[in-house]
Amino acid sequence: MAEPLFQRLCIIGLGLIGSSLARVAKERGGLAATVVACDTGPGVAARVAELGIADVVETDAARAVEGCDGVILCVPVGGFAGVMATIAPHLAPGAVLTDTGSTKGSVLRDLQPLLPAGVHLVPGHPMAGTEHSGPDAGFATLFEGRYTILTPPPGTDPAAVEKVAELWRRCGAMLETMDAATHDKVVAIVSHLPHLIAFTICSTADDLAQETQEQVLKFAASGFRDFTRIAASDVNMWRDIFLNNKPALLEMLARFSEDAQALGRAVRWGQADFIEDRIHRGQKVRKSLIALKQA
Amino acid sequence: MAEPLFQRLCIIGLGLIGSSLARVAKERGGLAATVVACDTGPGVAARVAELGIADVVETDAARAVEGCDGVILCVPVGGFAGVMATIAPHLAPGAVLTDTGSTKGSVLRDLQPLLPAGVHLVPGHPMAGTEHSGPDAGFATLFEGRYTILTPPPGTDPAAVEKVAELWRRCGAMLETMDAATHDKVVAIVSHLPHLIAFTICSTADDLAQETQEQVLKFAASGFRDFTRIAASDVNMWRDIFLNNKPALLEMLARFSEDAQALGRAVRWGQADFIEDRIHRGQKVRKSLIALKQA
Repeated sequence: MAEPLFQRLCIIGLGLIGSSLARVAKERGGLAATVVACDTGPGVAARVAELGIADVVETDAARAVEGCDGVILCVPVGGFAGVMATIAPHLAPGAVLTDTGSTKGSVLRDLQPLLPAGVHLVPGHPMAGTEHSGPDAGFATLFEGRYTILTPPPGTDPAAVEKVAELWRRCGAMLETMDAATHDKVVAIVSHLPHLIAFTICSTADDLAQETQEQVLKFAASGFRDFTRIAASDVNMWRDIFLNNKPALLEMLARFSEDAQALGRAVRWGQADFIEDRIHRGQKVRKSLIALKQA
Repeated sequence: MAEPLFQRLCIIGLGLIGSSLARVAKERGGLAATVVACDTGPGVAARVAELGIADVVETDAARAVEGCDGVILCVPVGGFAGVMATIAPHLAPGAVLTDTGSTKGSVLRDLQPLLPAGVHLVPGHPMAGTEHSGPDAGFATLFEGRYTILTPPPGTDPAAVEKVAELWRRCGAMLETMDAATHDKVVAIVSHLPHLIAFTICSTADDLAQETQEQVLKFAASGFRDFTRIAASDVNMWRDIFLNNKPALLEMLARFSEDAQALGRAVRWGQADFIEDRIHRGQKVRKSLIALKQA
């Protein structure tokens, strides 16, 4: 087995992502000699102790991070400023602070101002998930074959970046590095906008069902149901993502809306060529995903 | 085995749906004593003969329908008027004419004016499919546990309606009956709009990838890829659907766009309650689908 990357790694937030990381550490080893799990959610810490996926379980974040050479924040991004205010005075000199938040501009905004001298901040985002949440939803293979994007600010200690990269490699993830603004645009189009659309179309269909008194949903097999899987996602996490990636999400919604209106206009005016071109592009994109093994 | 429903059943169009019907007839029996398959697409008739899923293979629709007591049109809805002009003079008195088209107002518009006296028209729509197309894509279990919607015009012979209903029951489908206008609204929201959105977001993402020079698509795992499966659908079929369900599709696009803009506005102004409500509705809809076994 590989030498543990961290002596004492604190995972704050034991939802789908945090509990999956804890399981990787427990089941495969190589991440940390000691894993400290911290969650303030009702019953979560008790459940994590029951599951036996951490060496130490805490509900006090300030105490949890003490003496840790690695801290990883896995709470919804709306909680970052609060958690950082609690833990910042207790972070050990030389510690590496990373996270799994879905928005990276907001993470820099919330963490950097409170970062103690000598603590290395390496924001990260594993592009993996399911529609399930909570400590029971995690599993050790969640990150395998998926990308984790790191967005270290300019000047970050390369050794700290490498340590976080290696943590994700040991989880089976593939690594990419980009700046926070590019990250936020990319996830706005591949993840946040699809979720916004999925939540919306569920409401639109629900309204129609009430209006027509037809059980619209029972006919969902041919298209609609693909949209609803992601619409079942965690409420707090997604509210926080939307509110913390505002400019990029609104820009992507605007682009998408223009494109949807253009296709609607082609339908209205019977422009078969335009419609065919859009469908061809859909097929092309699908084929790219298959080629990239992300389908 | 049950007595065959039809003596001679002609399937026109041997794509995913038509070839799946032929397979049900062949593998399970009970649909027809003799199955005539007719397709004018390049190489399709030859391939159907090779696959051995029909008793008679034709490329001439006029000859194919002669002497048939059942005819089922499985071509893209844009082809209905042309096929009907060819076959109408050759339809046998007392025959039942049905179809699998995804839009039902257009089917009535295209078939009713040419319907010979004594031929019974019972439009139908099996709500089943995959993103694959062509005679090799079909399989005998495609319709199992899925709804088929029948939209017989007022005054249709109940015995003809029952015969078509029984055909679908023997394919494993569940039956619903509604008027064509309600059908077109229901499929616009559960199927056509999701496809329009999927085609659109693929184009939007593709444009962004070109602009940022980032390989946006490799990060598709968390949301986007669910949209792309349906975006890989058949070009001709979907162009025809969009053009033949114009009013309902444009109405649903307008409703969806209003709802998406409302959610976008809530994001801009930080209205957490509104955002949470939309996510909750998404979860509610997803749970309904699971309860209805359509998830």
